[in-house]
Amino acid sequence: MARAIQDAIVLFGDSITEFAWDVEVSGFGARLTNAYARKLDVINRGFSGYNTEWALPVLKQCLAPHEHRGRVPTVKLLVVWFGANDACDSPSVQHVPLDRYCDNIRAILDTVQSPESEFYSPATKVILITPPPINTLQWDRDDFRRFENPRDYAEGLKVVGKERNVPVLDAWTPLWKAAGEDMKSLDRVLSDGLHLNAGGYKVFIIYDGLMGLIDEVYPQLHYSRLQETFTLWGDVDPTNLADSLKRRTP
Amino acid sequence: MARAIQDAIVLFGDSITEFAWDVEVSGFGARLTNAYARKLDVINRGFSGYNTEWALPVLKQCLAPHEHRGRVPTVKLLVVWFGANDACDSPSVQHVPLDRYCDNIRAILDTVQSPESEFYSPATKVILITPPPINTLQWDRDDFRRFENPRDYAEGLKVVGKERNVPVLDAWTPLWKAAGEDMKSLDRVLSDGLHLNAGGYKVFIIYDGLMGLIDEVYPQLHYSRLQETFTLWGDVDPTNLADSLKRRTP
Repeated sequence: MARAIQDAIVLFGDSITEFAWDVEVSGFGARLTNAYARKLDVINRGFSGYNTEWALPVLKQCLAPHEHRGRVPTVKLLVVWFGANDACDSPSVQHVPLDRYCDNIRAILDTVQSPESEFYSPATKVILITPPPINTLQWDRDDFRRFENPRDYAEGLKVVGKERNVPVLDAWTPLWKAAGEDMKSLDRVLSDGLHLNAGGYKVFIIYDGLMGLIDEVYPQLHYSRLQETFTLWGDVDPTNLADSLKRRTP
Repeated sequence: MARAIQDAIVLFGDSITEFAWDVEVSGFGARLTNAYARKLDVINRGFSGYNTEWALPVLKQCLAPHEHRGRVPTVKLLVVWFGANDACDSPSVQHVPLDRYCDNIRAILDTVQSPESEFYSPATKVILITPPPINTLQWDRDDFRRFENPRDYAEGLKVVGKERNVPVLDAWTPLWKAAGEDMKSLDRVLSDGLHLNAGGYKVFIIYDGLMGLIDEVYPQLHYSRLQETFTLWGDVDPTNLADSLKRRTP
């Protein structure tokens, strides 16, 4: 069995999160895992196609209640990135009305932030990410996507973030700007009109955006300020392995 | 806290493992995480600079004893990739004599395979990977590296694998062949003479090699034969979320 020797960053979202370890598109999940190596484990909890309605019951299964403390990793950072599927138009089964999407995001926040919650975790910092823009000229797998929707859901998420004092990474705006505010040019940052390509995931838009936000709002969680769980090899004392290779408690 | 909703693959090794999520070099760790998304978590337990002498006490801290069962992920696959540092010449502090390296690998195997071990885990399959070749013309950070050493350690590892009936992925030979069996040309697969570049990590050499070996020796652990922990979105029943979003026990 694997011992919980490191605490964790959980990336919780839809396919844009699930596919974030794809090296072909320079996935920001892989980039985070690399940056936090030997410090925090970065866990893929991306669920392709899911909306917030389905995310909520899944989240409660992905978290451990208080009594598991000490044996399971503390989620130091929960990154929540939903909305791309909620923003589908009705009658898509993925559609969640904007108000309900906002309520579901509030419920996701309550899961870790409300003292009444079984999963209340004051040690867990949260970052919300807005859905990216959609390029309906590129996307050809269904007819439920409209350009305006993810933009509106992104704005709704920002309102919830402000109301709850939770930092929001606006993915919509920089991706839109990278396309010169022209839907046709969203193929610069999207692979199929919905999912991010290397241009979209790449450093300055998502990964750097997230690292910059962490540095700003949760500086103690920036990888550069975390100590390695086990000592660097140059500091190993071969005459006293037991002590010098003892895990440092975070 | 993060609940152990998925079992795990642990990649345990030195810097070649630690850096395996680097998207710039198409790291095989990121590739595995991507392939096993929603099935098994892939955990980075790479320790830059470490040899097997230091690996052993660290491994015992990375594993959980029997009594944690159920609350922590079962390590379904342990990939052990050491030797590149052991193979340094004396008096490097990283040097471990070949015989001792082989003994340490045996001890690593015993940690999960011996019924006497506190960490005995019959559910844990193991794959050993040999050290890659070294290009002493490229490597300029110390004088302890000789071309012959990793080759000899790779051979030693293969003997231990055979003796213990544990599959060994020979990384040395295909990387050497990719260089046309010419040390000068090892820069095709190594970034600095020691670490792998995109050519080295890339699909057919390490990632595909490992996936091919898994398919051959532990077919039940090939990602294509594992079910997603949570249902695919097309199978979610919106009229019965509780049941259709219940985690499937592996």
